[in-house]
Amino acid sequence: VTGTAADGGAPAPGGGPALVAALGRIVGGRHVLTDPDLTGSYRTDWTRRFTGDPLCVVRPADTAEVAAVVAACAAAGAPVTVQGGNTGLVAGAVPGDGDVLLSLTRLTALEPVDAVASQVTVGAGVTLANLQAHARAAGLDFGVDLAARDSATVGGLTATNAGGIRVLRHGDMRAQVVGVEAVLADGTVVAHLGGLPKDNTGYDLVGLLTGSEGTLAALTRVRVRLVPPLDHRVVALVAVEGTGPALDVLRSLRAAGLPLAAAELCYADGVDLVRSYASLKAPFDQAYPAYLLVECAGPAESEDDLLAALGEADGVADATVASDPRGREALWRYREAHTEAISAAGVPVKLDVAVPVGRLAAFTAELPAAVAGAAPGARSIVFGHVNEGNLHVNVLDAVERAEPVTDAVLRLVASYGGSISAEHGIGRAKGAWLPLCRGEAELAMMRRIKAGLDPADLFGRGVLLGSLDAAR
Amino acid sequence: VTGTAADGGAPAPGGGPALVAALGRIVGGRHVLTDPDLTGSYRTDWTRRFTGDPLCVVRPADTAEVAAVVAACAAAGAPVTVQGGNTGLVAGAVPGDGDVLLSLTRLTALEPVDAVASQVTVGAGVTLANLQAHARAAGLDFGVDLAARDSATVGGLTATNAGGIRVLRHGDMRAQVVGVEAVLADGTVVAHLGGLPKDNTGYDLVGLLTGSEGTLAALTRVRVRLVPPLDHRVVALVAVEGTGPALDVLRSLRAAGLPLAAAELCYADGVDLVRSYASLKAPFDQAYPAYLLVECAGPAESEDDLLAALGEADGVADATVASDPRGREALWRYREAHTEAISAAGVPVKLDVAVPVGRLAAFTAELPAAVAGAAPGARSIVFGHVNEGNLHVNVLDAVERAEPVTDAVLRLVASYGGSISAEHGIGRAKGAWLPLCRGEAELAMMRRIKAGLDPADLFGRGVLLGSLDAAR
Repeated sequence: VTGTAADGGAPAPGGGPALVAALGRIVGGRHVLTDPDLTGSYRTDWTRRFTGDPLCVVRPADTAEVAAVVAACAAAGAPVTVQGGNTGLVAGAVPGDGDVLLSLTRLTALEPVDAVASQVTVGAGVTLANLQAHARAAGLDFGVDLAARDSATVGGLTATNAGGIRVLRHGDMRAQVVGVEAVLADGTVVAHLGGLPKDNTGYDLVGLLTGSEGTLAALTRVRVRLVPPLDHRVVALVAVEGTGPALDVLRSLRAAGLPLAAAELCYADGVDLVRSYASLKAPFDQAYPAYLLVECAGPAESEDDLLAALGEADGVADATVASDPRGREALWRYREAHTEAISAAGVPVKLDVAVPVGRLAAFTAELPAAVAGAAPGARSIVFGHVNEGNLHVNVLDAVERAEPVTDAVLRLVASYGGSISAEHGIGRAKGAWLPLCRGEAELAMMRRIKAGLDPADLFGRGVLLGSLDAAR
Repeated sequence: VTGTAADGGAPAPGGGPALVAALGRIVGGRHVLTDPDLTGSYRTDWTRRFTGDPLCVVRPADTAEVAAVVAACAAAGAPVTVQGGNTGLVAGAVPGDGDVLLSLTRLTALEPVDAVASQVTVGAGVTLANLQAHARAAGLDFGVDLAARDSATVGGLTATNAGGIRVLRHGDMRAQVVGVEAVLADGTVVAHLGGLPKDNTGYDLVGLLTGSEGTLAALTRVRVRLVPPLDHRVVALVAVEGTGPALDVLRSLRAAGLPLAAAELCYADGVDLVRSYASLKAPFDQAYPAYLLVECAGPAESEDDLLAALGEADGVADATVASDPRGREALWRYREAHTEAISAAGVPVKLDVAVPVGRLAAFTAELPAAVAGAAPGARSIVFGHVNEGNLHVNVLDAVERAEPVTDAVLRLVASYGGSISAEHGIGRAKGAWLPLCRGEAELAMMRRIKAGLDPADLFGRGVLLGSLDAAR
């Protein structure tokens, strides 16, 4: 996709067949893939928007093999793209042409849950669903959840500081990760897995690696905090007249002291698309401009409290509530099927933005004109995590105008003091717009950290800071 | 204290009178102090254990002056020690001999509270007490509190990732800090003050600078999240038979769903010392081996719930509860007066350690023998934040055996998988023991980050990684 091996200052490309053979000696020949028929699912992201042509895919079994692989690549001057479940949306795990694609999905160790500390250490290749099941088997739960749970890995979630539908309650991945083990660009293994709640003994290396998008290290193990299971859940789908009223409702529910666990916003056009795609009946007798889905979760039943709070809240046009699993799932479906329904309708331009919550209503009012100016006739389907001001903007019928649409929306976001990537990261797809929300001093500081830890630019060449290097 | 200017690789010491004159032109001559009579409170820490001999003390008024000061020092090759309220305990803000001591206490701007985001940006020199008052005037509160609140500054709290007595409820400083402005070693100003709850656009620079102990940058402004005010507070002092029973009581109260806000542990000898120092009556009819102070805080009264939970809890030998301000303060006094009472009794060897909570009882059982082995006849007064396994170990009558006592206790901590500095940081005082709990790969990674951001070792020379540089 980008990331040619001829960047100034980087070592000359090396290796080729000799490196492939050396990697085979480390991990076993059957775990080094070069045949394009076998590497397809590694080379191309799941949206099929991004693809790369790696030297090979290498699948080590444990930390020692990862370290040996990285050392061999460093010795050969071969760039390395690290990949987990390949569910990213910004081409951060899609290989640069000629890269060694380091797939960590075989690192699936599940260590025993530490019930006293309420923590567990797992391999980077463990899927989110398997981590959740492991925690639940010990009477606990994991605080992050998102739709790609069956494929997304703990290593990838950590490397991208994933968010998802529980951030309102438990925070993002950085709030869960208490320790990591990682292989640095020189092949050394760094580990900080103690998980002490307080430990002021130097720089926050764990926090730095979390969200570094595979550009500083290959994460091999992750220690996360677990949360108490919340057995009683109740979901409400609330019809509202727009973004502002949705925020009013959320504010009322928060003031009522409800145990909120999620607050998701979607709009009439998205719900229409979902209903048509999934053959769902209308949630209410009439259509409304917007819908707020809220979930409460706690150790005790809260349906009556939620109903009472909705009765008192400003901005509620109509509402429907469910506390049984099937009913809850049916309400969630209006929101969770958005991604599939959009993909079925075409190839969208996908943007993941945030603005300060106090400015969210004004931003959503300005968004259609910004999109129309860049791609007349395009359709914007918008949904997201309203508590954090985070909206996923999906623009259909604009694939030929992807760059101007992206540019228009992200400039609008920046004018609101927002983030051009709230959850998904920068990867190889968004680097050109990074200066819109990170100042030159910040970018220089990031480049210095990268240069200090990975002077040969071995990891994730072209990811995050790649286009900036090219611009120097 | 350490930090000679002749370290290999650092620029030659420069400046002297010419630098002092240049700094005077930047900040005004009366804000550059060289007379030892005027610099005493800056040169020596409040415990009087550590002192240094700076070239001068410079007191800039705003970010632009800080940037100019740092640039001038960089040009002259003069090391800079950054200082806030000078309440640290590990000599991190005590100047190296010949350093420019950069005091930021004039950066006292209080920006308006952002009630929608529940955040505020303040100058690095604002004291914790003033930040708390500013938040409370806007109907909110700040989540960190500690005894040095009238002197400790927001910049210092951030640079040291301070903890304190509310970590159980709100987390440490890193959990509050959502943005910083800082001056880097080349004099450039880096700012990330948007405070967006979600923003995956590169490395977590804010988290990296938090807890970096003045070795990477001079923090000039900090944006923090604020918390809802908790008007109803109730405090219990619980008599227990030891550390294990104290943990049992805490576990029972947590399981009862109480809105815990603090959980502090102290022991019979410490309470005796406090009673004698502050002329307090005995809290109970008889003495007990240990005392657990718990505070609950919430939007509603919880005294009855706390009494009921204490009645059910295992491990409660006796308990006294207060919900009126004077009664609460009287109970807190048994714990909070420890530091003063210890100082009045002599110059202690002060250690601030943490071990995994599940091993805390075993650790406290082994501690007396470890201290006695290093300093026969010494007295250990121990207290701390039991929820995080964090104990402040104060050894009296051992000042001539400070190094062997420190060594014995910290080696014991390390053998328990603990932290040699849970809250206070490493500073210039604890660097020799850092390898006990940070592996060589971690230390090398920290040195690479430091070298990337501050290649001339301008900031905090001798702090945190200083003794490691010397050991290379």
